[in-house]
Amino acid sequence: MSVNVVSLTEKIGKLKEQNEYRIIAQMNDYQFKLIRMDREFIWHSHADTDETFFVIDGELEIALRDKILKLKANEMVVIPKGIEHKPKSIGECKIMLIEPGGTLNTGNAGGQLTDTREEWL
Amino acid sequence: MSVNVVSLTEKIGKLKEQNEYRIIAQMNDYQFKLIRMDREFIWHSHADTDETFFVIDGELEIALRDKILKLKANEMVVIPKGIEHKPKSIGECKIMLIEPGGTLNTGNAGGQLTDTREEWL
Repeated sequence: MSVNVVSLTEKIGKLKEQNEYRIIAQMNDYQFKLIRMDREFIWHSHADTDETFFVIDGELEIALRDKILKLKANEMVVIPKGIEHKPKSIGECKIMLIEPGGTLNTGNAGGQLTDTREEWL
Repeated sequence: MSVNVVSLTEKIGKLKEQNEYRIIAQMNDYQFKLIRMDREFIWHSHADTDETFFVIDGELEIALRDKILKLKANEMVVIPKGIEHKPKSIGECKIMLIEPGGTLNTGNAGGQLTDTREEWL
């Protein structure tokens, strides 16, 4: 059993590619994933789970059907299950996602941006 | 359904008392709790769940039976279920805990420091 401190700053520095998710920690069946996001994502929802976005650095907009959430560093939001959302970074945004392992990034929408890799950093 | 951005900085500023937990967000049955910790806590473990410590500001030491984890801002650790640990802040440390709702702060140990309040901030 190895219990180790995880530095978000250090891990983010190791993320070579933009728009790729990397797992940095696991709590029960939930995973913490980092991404250096530089894109407008697609509308989707997750039928079975809430999903947490935590902004480490940069700016993130998450469109809901009735409003746009605007997040910057040290801000977070929990998107409830079933709620359609469309994340969009303003330039590059460094984000930590928290969600159950196996949660697909594109949720119900599928398509080309679906990322089924589950790589640890 | 209200979906709102949560600012850790703003919420921490509203925490009047040290060593009191306040819930700031919920994801499925997991809760995010803030604490302005200024104390050495007691040895305890959680039989049924892992527990995540995320340091927002300050320094935190978490003693395990075989080593001491040292965390500062933007560092986190997941303490696996069943593992005895003893958190201790170096001065005041601002922390976000992530764990299932209802998880007792003193785990298996009980005692005077047990905090059964579940207040939102």
